Amino acid sequence: MNRLNKFLGYLEEYSGALITPGTNLYYLTGISPQATEERLFLLVINKGGESTLIAPKLYENEVDWESTIFWSDEEDPYKLLKKVLTLLNLTSGRILVEDTMRASFLINIEKLLRNYELVPLSNVTREMRMRKDEEEIKLMKKAAQIADEVFYEMISRGLDGKSEKQVALEIEFLIREKGDGISFAPIVAAGENAANPHHTPSERKIRRGDIVVLDFGAKYRGYCSDITRTVAIGEINEKLREVYEVVREAQERAFQTVREGIRAREVDSVAREYISAKGYGEYFIHRTGHGLGLDVHEEPYIGSKNERVLERGMTFTIEPGIYISQLGGVRIEDDVVVEGKKGRRLTNAERELIKL
Amino acid sequence: MNRLNKFLGYLEEYSGALITPGTNLYYLTGISPQATEERLFLLVINKGGESTLIAPKLYENEVDWESTIFWSDEEDPYKLLKKVLTLLNLTSGRILVEDTMRASFLINIEKLLRNYELVPLSNVTREMRMRKDEEEIKLMKKAAQIADEVFYEMISRGLDGKSEKQVALEIEFLIREKGDGISFAPIVAAGENAANPHHTPSERKIRRGDIVVLDFGAKYRGYCSDITRTVAIGEINEKLREVYEVVREAQERAFQTVREGIRAREVDSVAREYISAKGYGEYFIHRTGHGLGLDVHEEPYIGSKNERVLERGMTFTIEPGIYISQLGGVRIEDDVVVEGKKGRRLTNAERELIKL
Repeated sequence: MNRLNKFLGYLEEYSGALITPGTNLYYLTGISPQATEERLFLLVINKGGESTLIAPKLYENEVDWESTIFWSDEEDPYKLLKKVLTLLNLTSGRILVEDTMRASFLINIEKLLRNYELVPLSNVTREMRMRKDEEEIKLMKKAAQIADEVFYEMISRGLDGKSEKQVALEIEFLIREKGDGISFAPIVAAGENAANPHHTPSERKIRRGDIVVLDFGAKYRGYCSDITRTVAIGEINEKLREVYEVVREAQERAFQTVREGIRAREVDSVAREYISAKGYGEYFIHRTGHGLGLDVHEEPYIGSKNERVLERGMTFTIEPGIYISQLGGVRIEDDVVVEGKKGRRLTNAERELIKL
Repeated sequence: MNRLNKFLGYLEEYSGALITPGTNLYYLTGISPQATEERLFLLVINKGGESTLIAPKLYENEVDWESTIFWSDEEDPYKLLKKVLTLLNLTSGRILVEDTMRASFLINIEKLLRNYELVPLSNVTREMRMRKDEEEIKLMKKAAQIADEVFYEMISRGLDGKSEKQVALEIEFLIREKGDGISFAPIVAAGENAANPHHTPSERKIRRGDIVVLDFGAKYRGYCSDITRTVAIGEINEKLREVYEVVREAQERAFQTVREGIRAREVDSVAREYISAKGYGEYFIHRTGHGLGLDVHEEPYIGSKNERVLERGMTFTIEPGIYISQLGGVRIEDDVVVEGKKGRRLTNAERELIKL
């Protein structure tokens, strides 16, 4: 209830919140039901802290909340919701709504409201979730360790002769054996495909002379890791070896910049300026990193315009990259937590170029 | 464009539609971008058939639509959308909205509208999608064949000694090797766990004397299959053998009922009445089946209250089950298409009790 109480502290200007399942509901209450997509599952909470959970009868044995109304397939959940909203005085005013709620639910909910304004819930939760406590960082460290282990396991198995798709599937399989699942669909990009930062693994076979970008992450009790390593299959092009060293050094410099009190954009600019000075500025086409936690993309984003001041306990990726059409690309990514006067890497797989 | 033209025929009482990615967008246009969750990706189409796609710049090389506006991370996509809505005369009236659109998008979109009413898009698309054409049925047949193959492969590998979770992972892996992915997270429920129709695979080991429910499905070019078979590990309890035969016969009778012109509820009642006559009525706690297509759950639902008249080309599951707490459960599920005077099964793995 600690987080929920803290949440109530942010609700002064709101009537309350309507929260469907997702990382916000999990963060605030620990409730994390599987596969509720088609049926209304909604926590209603007002600024006074009074709450009611409306849940499908299917979840009767799974969910335990102080005040819950279960509805069966013969009932109209919006009739129940109407009563709850009236009781909790939540039919008007500024109301927070879970960002990922389905439009079809929201359309029905709006019919029950008068003189209202809807505000995405993340406006409040992003402020809370950005600052991780010790317990959260422990879980993130565990998720990062799984990512490190999977990297070494894949390296020892070898990549030569396998398709990108096959390697992606093996990575996913390993992650799921060790953790609670993948934090996103693994990216495996070989040779010329490595020039596309969001490449979807294809049937292309990995062969001698390829550079291969491996980008993946694990979940552990809800928390995400996200690692990228780029490896060489035998001897690679000299230009790519040079690019590799530029990215490695940019990543290291950006990491060394991390500390309490600097702005997110300053971390970005250290990586960006180094890469530009080496003549590859136009090939670094994305942000230096993104926040990481229950979502694999969250605040703080490490981009050139983000004035956000970094604080102890914030966690994010540092992942500069250089992408050259036809030739290939390199990206190196670690997960980092701000720890006072410096940052600490959560992922630790080696960053020197590995030749397989 | 054929389906989109047909769609326009349904738009008389609407100003138009706002469609984010998902099975409806894929059905109507073939557009199926990966992972657009956080960025606005929206097809705007008015009743006259004029349309504009608003898409993140990231998708520039992936998406090809007659009129597309790509927006970069520095732009506000809602400013672009405002112009598009005005141009297409779509700022008021009854507007269809993709059911799964994120609330955070809808909140912003609503600020651009006046005197409007929102209606879930599925109100229109469900009527179209329920009736499959020959090409769609071919794809569904292929998805069903993959499910059959995976069943036999798992049987030949054996289940004894493996955990439910491990079997579920193996099933998923096999499906992904053969098709385009799973249509839902596989259910593997052994022994007493088989009494829960929605059991989540656990660490419980499968052993001699268990009955095991395997429920899974494959996707093939977007179309889903969904099969359930229940197998015995060695000798099982006599009561469960009896229950198995009741379910098998109920499933067969329901299947034999399928033809054009009868109501969905009539298929349900054939299975339900047989199971009740055998004394297990109270243990058959769900509908007899659900429609199947691009979504794994869609119309027509084969339930006791659905008056929907079945037509040629409709596809759905027939999956009666009996669930007895402590003891276990049995479910047998096939995918079926209506073909005039009879139904045709798309899944064909044997339905006699297999003893491993």
